[in-house]
Amino acid sequence: MDVKVTTLKNGLRVISDPMPGLETSAVGVWVDTGARHETAAENGISHVLEHMAFKGTSKRSALQIAEVIESVGGHLNAYTSRDQTAYYARVLKDDVPLAVDILSDILQHSVFDEQEIAREKEVIVQEIGQTFDTPDDIIFDYLQETSYPDQPIGRSILGTVSQVRGFERGMIADYMNRHYLAPGMVLSASGAVDHDALVRLAEEAFGDLSASGGYEMEPAVYRGGDYREARKLEQVHYALSVPGASYMDDDYYALQILSGLLGGGMSSRLFQEIRERRGLCYSVFSFASSFMDSGTFTVYAGTGEEHINELSHVLTDELRRVSDDLSTSEVERAKAQLKASLLMGMEGPAARAEVHARQLQIYGRVLPAAEITESIDAVSLEEVKNLAGRLFYGVTPTIAALGPLKNLDPYERIAARFN
Amino acid sequence: MDVKVTTLKNGLRVISDPMPGLETSAVGVWVDTGARHETAAENGISHVLEHMAFKGTSKRSALQIAEVIESVGGHLNAYTSRDQTAYYARVLKDDVPLAVDILSDILQHSVFDEQEIAREKEVIVQEIGQTFDTPDDIIFDYLQETSYPDQPIGRSILGTVSQVRGFERGMIADYMNRHYLAPGMVLSASGAVDHDALVRLAEEAFGDLSASGGYEMEPAVYRGGDYREARKLEQVHYALSVPGASYMDDDYYALQILSGLLGGGMSSRLFQEIRERRGLCYSVFSFASSFMDSGTFTVYAGTGEEHINELSHVLTDELRRVSDDLSTSEVERAKAQLKASLLMGMEGPAARAEVHARQLQIYGRVLPAAEITESIDAVSLEEVKNLAGRLFYGVTPTIAALGPLKNLDPYERIAARFN
Repeated sequence: MDVKVTTLKNGLRVISDPMPGLETSAVGVWVDTGARHETAAENGISHVLEHMAFKGTSKRSALQIAEVIESVGGHLNAYTSRDQTAYYARVLKDDVPLAVDILSDILQHSVFDEQEIAREKEVIVQEIGQTFDTPDDIIFDYLQETSYPDQPIGRSILGTVSQVRGFERGMIADYMNRHYLAPGMVLSASGAVDHDALVRLAEEAFGDLSASGGYEMEPAVYRGGDYREARKLEQVHYALSVPGASYMDDDYYALQILSGLLGGGMSSRLFQEIRERRGLCYSVFSFASSFMDSGTFTVYAGTGEEHINELSHVLTDELRRVSDDLSTSEVERAKAQLKASLLMGMEGPAARAEVHARQLQIYGRVLPAAEITESIDAVSLEEVKNLAGRLFYGVTPTIAALGPLKNLDPYERIAARFN
Repeated sequence: MDVKVTTLKNGLRVISDPMPGLETSAVGVWVDTGARHETAAENGISHVLEHMAFKGTSKRSALQIAEVIESVGGHLNAYTSRDQTAYYARVLKDDVPLAVDILSDILQHSVFDEQEIAREKEVIVQEIGQTFDTPDDIIFDYLQETSYPDQPIGRSILGTVSQVRGFERGMIADYMNRHYLAPGMVLSASGAVDHDALVRLAEEAFGDLSASGGYEMEPAVYRGGDYREARKLEQVHYALSVPGASYMDDDYYALQILSGLLGGGMSSRLFQEIRERRGLCYSVFSFASSFMDSGTFTVYAGTGEEHINELSHVLTDELRRVSDDLSTSEVERAKAQLKASLLMGMEGPAARAEVHARQLQIYGRVLPAAEITESIDAVSLEEVKNLAGRLFYGVTPTIAALGPLKNLDPYERIAARFN
């Protein structure tokens, strides 16, 4: 690994990761701003801003932005999450300077034309509609909102239709000025890249970006609860969360291991019991979501109306059982899977650029692969068992359910199983 | 590129593609059997068989199959399409022999236990339900069925609930015996692999596989027509197909270029007109589907009930307009995107193993990257214009629409626009 990091005078960090033999590069900017940094009145604005960044700058129209990158065979994309906004390009190796130029242009010189704002809001209204129509997408918004009610981290990334329609030019520009600050931004490139050349490009392109300013982040407070929406669907989509681990938590890797052995692969407990032994589900899986100051552990399953009560019981039983009868071989298997997936996930330039940027934002440094492997190896059977004992006992779970719900137990009865 | 192909005595082809510096490998078997090779009574059985391959062999239980691969950090997966079934593993480099052993075991020594069949059918029933609940998934099944009515290639891959529940052990085993034949199978590996070692493993593992037998394939006959399903959704999900190109068609690359400039990237015509200028959609894109003897060109868009009529008109206008006013710069941009995406798509071992297997099955050889690039470069503006003239004039389109449909024009009126 030949990863190098340089911090510009204004605090923007530049990270490069040359991959021998590659003819293409992944280049992106990760900004430490997302839905959780919005006030209630601002909810959805990070995502509107992400869309508006593509709608024209002082030197390029929206069409020119698209054409200039796509004419050289590249592409440009972006996403908004709860704690970050990312803009990234994939280009052939000679076009890294172009990618940096476009990224710096859209992130510093967007004009936010009124007519473009009006049209783009309608595009986002359609995006909200599409998400609503996709049960195994919208259910995770419901779950997050119920886990963290009445606080920024719980709100949806897209916001509501009426709120999105209400955002005006001044609010968007102001939000960008307050949130897109050099110390919170990382320019990360992997593949066919050269560090010194990248730093020179970054100095020229991002050197004038504001170093000062800042904004508050409301701490996340998990509460839990119940959200149900009856819909005429073939399946009940059912998701359950309990408090998990933050990025900073000592249990972070233990939770990754626990999630793997519970709902990671074909040999995991939930897959074996719920799909293989009982045939209740096609999709059943678990995952851990982490933030800087909080986190959740989630299981999802979809099943027919007639099976939902059995599913909900078995799911709870499986979670509760781990702290009793977890075996060394399961922990070892989950560790092997986690380590291999980290390795496999680092074989493409786009994934690597993202991992490095995220590590810089979370830990302030790039974590060497060997260090992560050691952290995983260091987790003992007892730690995972103890974690499972804390996670699934004496907690207030969060339930989100969507579909034909009449057979699903009331929340109180499900919650009581976690006493 | 150091790709090598060896054909075993029974006709099974082994292809390896060593990628320097990689610590992991992708290894899979591609079988030239899918939904289009099924009779009406067999519809869904290729997919049931794919599921059952994981449910136990004469030497390993379902749990052991999962555990043995996941204990070394690998994973195993499979998919069924209309013309093939694929089984593939991702493993660390030392575990290629294990991956080949498991693949050969599940593809030759599956026991199809009656109880496992009964349970797995219910898993597939849940999979059918999940697909049905996902509008922008199920709509493409409706579109295919309406493009190719009453023929194997038009039927859904998953089949119907009642048909899946009706499959018995003997039918599944018989289907495997008739369809899993060495000459139609390719063992493909990319990443940390050695060709000679792979061939030795293949000879040992697959040498006894039957070389003879065979089955008929009913030629695909495009007909077109209309499918509508009213559902209470936020969006109308709208898809439209016209006859496209088969893999063997001279227009194959011209169609890829046409699809790119119409609905490929942000600078494409449909994205610009429908999303950027009119704000009608969040998702709007096009793609070409090819088979050995037929193909379609498809556009998809999702929009609110109040916009569907405008959308359907604009979509048609944009398709029809291409043959009139296509510019050299659009064709050049689409070519650059297509070539770059081929290059970027070949940077990961899993994608490479699949591309090579598919090329062997379709063309009987691996296509060198330079040859594909030349074929793309050789397409002229006139060819793309002429193709657009044939595709969107004097044809019977296929429409599939799902959602609140009352504002959508009747099929006859939409079809008349393609006269």
